[in-house]
Amino acid sequence: MTAAVVAVDIGGTTVKASVVDERGVRRHQRTGPSEGGADTVAVVRSLISTLREAALADGLDVLAAGVVTPGLVDAATGTVAYASNLGWRDFDLRAALAGPLGLPVSVGHDVRAAGRAERHLGAARGTDDFVLLQLGTGIAAAVVTAGTLVGGAGSAAGEAGHMPVYPDGEPCPCGKRGCLEAYAAGAAVPRRYRAAHGAREVSGAADVVGLLGVDPVADRVWGEAVRALGFGVSTLTMLLDPALVVLGGGLAQAGDALLGPVERTLTELLVWREAPELRLSTLGPAAGQWGAAIEAFALTAAGGCVRSWSHPTSVVA
Amino acid sequence: MTAAVVAVDIGGTTVKASVVDERGVRRHQRTGPSEGGADTVAVVRSLISTLREAALADGLDVLAAGVVTPGLVDAATGTVAYASNLGWRDFDLRAALAGPLGLPVSVGHDVRAAGRAERHLGAARGTDDFVLLQLGTGIAAAVVTAGTLVGGAGSAAGEAGHMPVYPDGEPCPCGKRGCLEAYAAGAAVPRRYRAAHGAREVSGAADVVGLLGVDPVADRVWGEAVRALGFGVSTLTMLLDPALVVLGGGLAQAGDALLGPVERTLTELLVWREAPELRLSTLGPAAGQWGAAIEAFALTAAGGCVRSWSHPTSVVA
Repeated sequence: MTAAVVAVDIGGTTVKASVVDERGVRRHQRTGPSEGGADTVAVVRSLISTLREAALADGLDVLAAGVVTPGLVDAATGTVAYASNLGWRDFDLRAALAGPLGLPVSVGHDVRAAGRAERHLGAARGTDDFVLLQLGTGIAAAVVTAGTLVGGAGSAAGEAGHMPVYPDGEPCPCGKRGCLEAYAAGAAVPRRYRAAHGAREVSGAADVVGLLGVDPVADRVWGEAVRALGFGVSTLTMLLDPALVVLGGGLAQAGDALLGPVERTLTELLVWREAPELRLSTLGPAAGQWGAAIEAFALTAAGGCVRSWSHPTSVVA
Repeated sequence: MTAAVVAVDIGGTTVKASVVDERGVRRHQRTGPSEGGADTVAVVRSLISTLREAALADGLDVLAAGVVTPGLVDAATGTVAYASNLGWRDFDLRAALAGPLGLPVSVGHDVRAAGRAERHLGAARGTDDFVLLQLGTGIAAAVVTAGTLVGGAGSAAGEAGHMPVYPDGEPCPCGKRGCLEAYAAGAAVPRRYRAAHGAREVSGAADVVGLLGVDPVADRVWGEAVRALGFGVSTLTMLLDPALVVLGGGLAQAGDALLGPVERTLTELLVWREAPELRLSTLGPAAGQWGAAIEAFALTAAGGCVRSWSHPTSVVA
């Protein structure tokens, strides 16, 4: 039988899970609702069981599960100190899954796992010093220096969305003012568009991107998001000197409408030093699951297999 | 004979050198002018020779020299890729010293070496995740995560003084606008005071601190420096989650007039997370030399001796 793992990415609204085999092929994707607390744990458990059976029918032997989640995650103990959207506090997520499932389970941080995956088989392959800026509903970063992911003293590193970009600026849902996230997150772009221009209905950042060049309000709101990102990347460049900054998450789906303007702003702001290279994520929304799979394989005797994975391959049923 | 090293801290105006013996006692301090280029190299060489003789007369055997400098420093090769104030570009500083002196020479970055020293025997003892903010004429940082100093892809990490704190704010001598350094460096505080209040002569930040509570302009300029530092520390807290931030350099001589206000500002700005601990440097202006001594001993068979150093001891002649 071929070795495999189940990789699970727990989000604030959805749990995404898939089987990844030892050759690095992702298959059998399933999703479930994430309503927080014990419900989300039950959904994760059920997805892992279902996918394990599907894998078995395919001749795959699931040896471990890898689970990644937002929040303050201690990968060493498998506990989640705090995850606001999921209602978890000092929660032993590993014990809640490993026991009932009878499987080894790794527990990791979603964005740091995505950073691990981008380095392993995505946009940051072969790069030892880079930052992945995950531009989702909120914004978080995976910071890699000298090949090592930065966790920080309390596993809280990477809160790039709450760097103060405009002191005393726009209120952020977090309670502070002027946070990067208040201008440039997937939730901020449509919120700011609606605030400036009540007439048109937009539900997401993609709608605003669709109006670029047509609607001056969209141009302005997007321009302000890009400029805030330029300041944020400028700050982390000064502090960390990365060779590369990868833009991921939903907002990165805007592609060249994001990458080009951020590059130009960054070059303008840095003045006396070269800008780090900017790239779009190549793993997209699956980055967290790829990271979870890499972390899960590390628990197994087949762990070395991940070194042979050279690019993301999905045959998802 | 007792083993010793010569430790040299090259600054933009002064070279400071001392002998440090294997018991961690610093002695025989000497300084010389730093006018850049080959002149500074000659001064460094001469200080090392003089101190080596003084040490020998004291029964100390100088086994190596440690030299630290600002700029883009590659410690592995001993070269300085760029140091603007010293006029060095792709300069093999180690070769320029080690050959003529017939001594092993370590070459390091001044602020990173200071960070190493604060961790070894200063304010950051026993702390694996911290940032040293060196508030001198300019501002630079030593970033330590999981016990490792962050160098970055091009040895340019730690340029904390040029994080953009106020977008499109005050012009910085570097050519950018709104840099932390434009508000809170040792050079910025008296410059901003003079710009606001031509009547009174102040030559340094200490003069402005001396006017606090007496001169409302001093209060305002200092308050703005403190607030800019609060934003800077808030940003690096979000990104790196340090347990501790050490304030060093000339401005830290202000003591409680700096520490208390920065602490209060930081607590106010962070809102939903605890602030990292803030401390003043305990090694002060000697931090770079202590770091140079630690790096120099690492080149010798006596290197293990530094583990026994528990606090800075200076008997300087």
